[in-house]
Amino acid sequence: MKRTLAVGLIGYKFMGKAHSNAWRQAPHFFDLPAGVRMKTICGRNRTAVKKAAAKLDWENAETDWRCIIADPRIDIIDICTPNESHCEIAVAAAKAGKAILCEKPLARNVDEAEKMAQAVKKARVVNMICHNYRRVPAIALAKQMIERGEIGDRIFHFHARYAQDWIVDPNFPLVWRLQSDPAGSGALGDIFSHIVDLARYLVGEFREICGVMETFVKQRPLEKNPRVKGKVAVDDAVTMIGRFKNGALASLEATRFAPGRKNSITLEINGSAGSLFFDLEEMNRLRVYNAADPQDRQGFRDILVTEPSHPYIANWWPPGHVIGYEHTFVHTIADFANAVAAGKSVQPTFTDGLHNQYVLDAVKESVRINKWIRL
Amino acid sequence: MKRTLAVGLIGYKFMGKAHSNAWRQAPHFFDLPAGVRMKTICGRNRTAVKKAAAKLDWENAETDWRCIIADPRIDIIDICTPNESHCEIAVAAAKAGKAILCEKPLARNVDEAEKMAQAVKKARVVNMICHNYRRVPAIALAKQMIERGEIGDRIFHFHARYAQDWIVDPNFPLVWRLQSDPAGSGALGDIFSHIVDLARYLVGEFREICGVMETFVKQRPLEKNPRVKGKVAVDDAVTMIGRFKNGALASLEATRFAPGRKNSITLEINGSAGSLFFDLEEMNRLRVYNAADPQDRQGFRDILVTEPSHPYIANWWPPGHVIGYEHTFVHTIADFANAVAAGKSVQPTFTDGLHNQYVLDAVKESVRINKWIRL
Amino acid sequence: MKRTLAVGLIGYKFMGKAHSNAWRQAPHFFDLPAGVRMKTICGRNRTAVKKAAAKLDWENAETDWRCIIADPRIDIIDICTPNESHCEIAVAAAKAGKAILCEKPLARNVDEAEKMAQAVKKARVVNMICHNYRRVPAIALAKQMIERGEIGDRIFHFHARYAQDWIVDPNFPLVWRLQSDPAGSGALGDIFSHIVDLARYLVGEFREICGVMETFVKQRPLEKNPRVKGKVAVDDAVTMIGRFKNGALASLEATRFAPGRKNSITLEINGSAGSLFFDLEEMNRLRVYNAADPQDRQGFRDILVTEPSHPYIANWWPPGHVIGYEHTFVHTIADFANAVAAGKSVQPTFTDGLHNQYVLDAVKESVRINKWIRL
Amino acid sequence: MKRTLAVGLIGYKFMGKAHSNAWRQAPHFFDLPAGVRMKTICGRNRTAVKKAAAKLDWENAETDWRCIIADPRIDIIDICTPNESHCEIAVAAAKAGKAILCEKPLARNVDEAEKMAQAVKKARVVNMICHNYRRVPAIALAKQMIERGEIGDRIFHFHARYAQDWIVDPNFPLVWRLQSDPAGSGALGDIFSHIVDLARYLVGEFREICGVMETFVKQRPLEKNPRVKGKVAVDDAVTMIGRFKNGALASLEATRFAPGRKNSITLEINGSAGSLFFDLEEMNRLRVYNAADPQDRQGFRDILVTEPSHPYIANWWPPGHVIGYEHTFVHTIADFANAVAAGKSVQPTFTDGLHNQYVLDAVKESVRINKWIRL
Repeated sequence: MKRTLAVGLIGYKFMGKAHSNAWRQAPHFFDLPAGVRMKTICGRNRTAVKKAAAKLDWENAETDWRCIIADPRIDIIDICTPNESHCEIAVAAAKAGKAILCEKPLARNVDEAEKMAQAVKKARVVNMICHNYRRVPAIALAKQMIERGEIGDRIFHFHARYAQDWIVDPNFPLVWRLQSDPAGSGALGDIFSHIVDLARYLVGEFREICGVMETFVKQRPLEKNPRVKGKVAVDDAVTMIGRFKNGALASLEATRFAPGRKNSITLEINGSAGSLFFDLEEMNRLRVYNAADPQDRQGFRDILVTEPSHPYIANWWPPGHVIGYEHTFVHTIADFANAVAAGKSVQPTFTDGLHNQYVLDAVKESVRINKWIRL
Repeated sequence: MKRTLAVGLIGYKFMGKAHSNAWRQAPHFFDLPAGVRMKTICGRNRTAVKKAAAKLDWENAETDWRCIIADPRIDIIDICTPNESHCEIAVAAAKAGKAILCEKPLARNVDEAEKMAQAVKKARVVNMICHNYRRVPAIALAKQMIERGEIGDRIFHFHARYAQDWIVDPNFPLVWRLQSDPAGSGALGDIFSHIVDLARYLVGEFREICGVMETFVKQRPLEKNPRVKGKVAVDDAVTMIGRFKNGALASLEATRFAPGRKNSITLEINGSAGSLFFDLEEMNRLRVYNAADPQDRQGFRDILVTEPSHPYIANWWPPGHVIGYEHTFVHTIADFANAVAAGKSVQPTFTDGLHNQYVLDAVKESVRINKWIRL
Repeated sequence: MKRTLAVGLIGYKFMGKAHSNAWRQAPHFFDLPAGVRMKTICGRNRTAVKKAAAKLDWENAETDWRCIIADPRIDIIDICTPNESHCEIAVAAAKAGKAILCEKPLARNVDEAEKMAQAVKKARVVNMICHNYRRVPAIALAKQMIERGEIGDRIFHFHARYAQDWIVDPNFPLVWRLQSDPAGSGALGDIFSHIVDLARYLVGEFREICGVMETFVKQRPLEKNPRVKGKVAVDDAVTMIGRFKNGALASLEATRFAPGRKNSITLEINGSAGSLFFDLEEMNRLRVYNAADPQDRQGFRDILVTEPSHPYIANWWPPGHVIGYEHTFVHTIADFANAVAAGKSVQPTFTDGLHNQYVLDAVKESVRINKWIRL
Repeated sequence: MKRTLAVGLIGYKFMGKAHSNAWRQAPHFFDLPAGVRMKTICGRNRTAVKKAAAKLDWENAETDWRCIIADPRIDIIDICTPNESHCEIAVAAAKAGKAILCEKPLARNVDEAEKMAQAVKKARVVNMICHNYRRVPAIALAKQMIERGEIGDRIFHFHARYAQDWIVDPNFPLVWRLQSDPAGSGALGDIFSHIVDLARYLVGEFREICGVMETFVKQRPLEKNPRVKGKVAVDDAVTMIGRFKNGALASLEATRFAPGRKNSITLEINGSAGSLFFDLEEMNRLRVYNAADPQDRQGFRDILVTEPSHPYIANWWPPGHVIGYEHTFVHTIADFANAVAAGKSVQPTFTDGLHNQYVLDAVKESVRINKWIRL
């Protein structure tokens, strides 16, 4: 008889909703080696978390995350809280021997990230950081193509931009994501971390980087009292150049100040035998240029990544029937459930989260001292 | 306390999977006036339907659809079977007083469709045909724009093409969708019906039409004995021109013989003050040309239909986080659940299905006699 | 020493400007077997034609086209007049032994076209109809690919639309292109003729067709007295279905009533081994789907048709440096100059023009009698 | 009577061909205040330059550029030579009182550029650097929109990439553009200079920058003896971050190592009220996002920049009839001819070339010392 994995989810807002959906959906589309039991969801506001539990299909609602961790019937802790509490919760969960899935960024800084990586290592618990975009089928296909040498044995460029526009209005309030303590950083940890992760996933480790950051709107209305303005202590945008250890050049930018770009990640990778291009707003597509095609028949091939032979797709719909944003979480959680059942972590692990954090902290330091930083 | 609607689903393959997902998901994303109980799923193969019940989250599995209809605890019959049984099941369900959701095409011909429309009318049961593409948010937005006169008070053209490529290989077997009895027709009922429905939804009723149909591969291997070939008795492609009652011209084509087009619907509507363009492969977008824009600032506007103010979107994710194919079923079933709770059918009803069928039969007749047909 | 070809051009407006440019440019980019002498340009308004001669680089200006044809020093007659005079001029030019390039449509109807085709046949003069889009490099590449069997040995579909929007405004005046006598027809001869020509060029001859035409705005202000309205006696739009002799299905539409479409030709051809897609608004590109690509690496290839190995391109700029609309005329005239020098017509000849006209007249007749027409 | 401007062109290869075409075409499409006389073309290889003169329509061929400058009948010197000779020729031409058009980059370094800027200032001659992309109609429209505040009163980001792929093959020979002496630099001066120029044109002056450069293929076959390899002393790619004086962030990259990108410039500018996006491979289009559009009708507007009201377009063809690469030179030379006739330089002047050169040299220095450079 199949084992059942009981899950405790901490956080019930945007990411809580996305993870809940993924826990609910994964067993219906993927053949998992274990059952999933959506046991407890946790949040600080009792009314809200109870409502969330009902809506999102959790058995219980809880307001103290320590209770979930103390609950011996729970196997998995899924952390969807603001960044400030990732470290404390993860360390406690590791000590309690739970498998842990943690939203990105792993932490607010390297110190926290190291504690977390050490904790899971010491406790030998299965761990994963939720960089869901690794599991966009088109991205997974890109990874496969790079590994098979389809764009050549050398990579020259990784060029990526993550652009949003939700805070262009200077009257948008000073929400937690714009505050230093809960968030740790602005665009840097929230979205730049995603393209750092994709860079490391697809190309490899960075050797050196140099960055620039900017806060375009320096004061914003307080959420609870809009007539008063508070200082915006985090970055609105970050731009970075760098070199990878394998010699490729890097150009990465993340911004919340690109009107019209709602949740856009564009990335291009140029190798010695071809190129890849991806745009998250057309997430079911991968553009591939293969220099080995006959010279007068060359062109970027627009692959609609909905074939059963493409990563994750066989579990969904027939060719041409596209999937959406939330499916990347279902893929993540299906892989994580497999990992937990097998007792062996799956990428990206807390160690990946830590390595990402090295880069994020290096960018901050680079900006502080106005210099290149060697990693 | 909220009422609970108990559902019986007949059919467990492609559409059965899509509808099951929609019944499962709708309550978690939409505020429904009634609870949903996924009570019984029905299919002819006992082993397969039991497996489907487990995977798709139904309480019971059943092999005789008459039992479901006879079950007084069931409120809704959802018909996802091959076309040949739509009529018999729907008529029986209506007689039993069930609310009915039926997959498209409503029937194999007008005779069947009329029986079905009369049955639901006589029984006064809530009824709906599942033309899910009406509830792509971009299509719903297009409808809204047309109704508000945003592309003008006259429509000149409706130009649509539904293209697939899954049977281009002449060795693809003679599956039920290629057989006359179970399917009734080929591309005509399966996919042409969708663009007929969209034409009627967005522009209005047809006045006259003239069509051409073709079966490019006339014999195919039998499924159970591939060394023997059987005759393909349904159409591979259908092309039609026509006039709407409001004077607009129509050009519609559906084909299963367009290599590279996996599940592509492109449609363009030209009106006196603007144009709309939609492509199902980029289903989160609507292209809109507004002739009222300043002459040197005009251009098709590429609307990413993921704003909370766009139809259905507020229930899902923040702007820029795209949805996929299956969401159109969730929208359909959420609207249908509301309709059942309110005791009042929602578009498209069986009457719409019948009107669509008038067009489909007219196309067939037009091809048979090689002439225009007035509707 | 190289022979010199002396040209007489009749017409000096849009097409006169385009052809003048082509005669001027061809020798600088193509290695022609003969020199080109831009001898005389002809138009009915003396002041205007003299101005045109100066601007467009012609040696002489003339107001009577008979004088040009009578001029023994002139080798080539290039006809860029309104459609009503094509026949008379061409027949006279043929009798005078001139090589003839004639703008499309060849004539206003089959009667005229037959006279023209017979005249050049009898006179054995080099003749060509200027369907310039055949010489868009991407179209020429498409032709090459079809001939080499790159999209398979069968063609299933030819689907094309030519859309413009310049007369959507009901107050746009009743210019000659909207009058029956000078133009012969509206969208039919002006733009539908282009996609008929491309259909015949790329796929082959039609077997049977059925069409519908519409004049959306039935009265328009007179050019010289805008307070008075005159009847619009030509079509605003035409839509046609049909079958080719090789069994392919045809769907063609031309309209001047598509807001936002300025000069858009989209065409898709589906064959047994692949598909081609072209859009004139992105005329340097050809999209090609090759079903022989590995199943999980398939996708429409976006060929930027600017490589030296692509048709006509080696004469222009390095890869990636795009060409524009007028270049198609330079290609046409370079090929025509070669044909004249060699004494052998090059496609499309007047015979092609005549065959196109058979289709155009068949469409008209089909609309008149509301029936299919066999060609 | 109109004055005639006599032109001497130095250089006859790629740029010589493009400029010759522009001098030839400008008078036929633009109303110039003076006539143009294509008097002398100059090149070091007598046979080749004579052939070029005949093909490109110059009256005389010359092998010593000093003779052209000494020729009192020549008004304009147009410099299309490799970078190493720009300075010497321009300084001599200025001393001789000629109006000067010089291809980009102005020089190999700031020293040379300053000499040139001083020379034209002292001699008070009309001068212009040929950054032809400023006169792509879509770019000129972008400039107009920025100046009118259509994307807001603040600019946040300028993000540009110029990508080519012509030397990805390590066996591509060591041509002059890859050698230090004639070229001065690689991608930096050749193509990065274009996006630096566009950045300054569209956004303003840089305050500080930091760059990285790379030579991916360090040795290449000699042109004259392919069995011997020589050192590649110039950059293959350059990436830069920076800040503009107005507070905007900059991210610029130029590379010759992007397989599939033939001559691609993509640029995005994000402002407080909208965004602009341009792609040179679709040079007749400008994408514009206007944040003032109604929230549920927003989207990037795809402006086909072919309306008579768009910059330069009225001189060409009707709406929808696209132009190509070479037209940007015609625009440049039409504006330059006007400037010469008026005796007043037009942007971009040698001073712009010098300012661009400050940035290029700063990038080099930044790479050398591995630090930020303040401009």
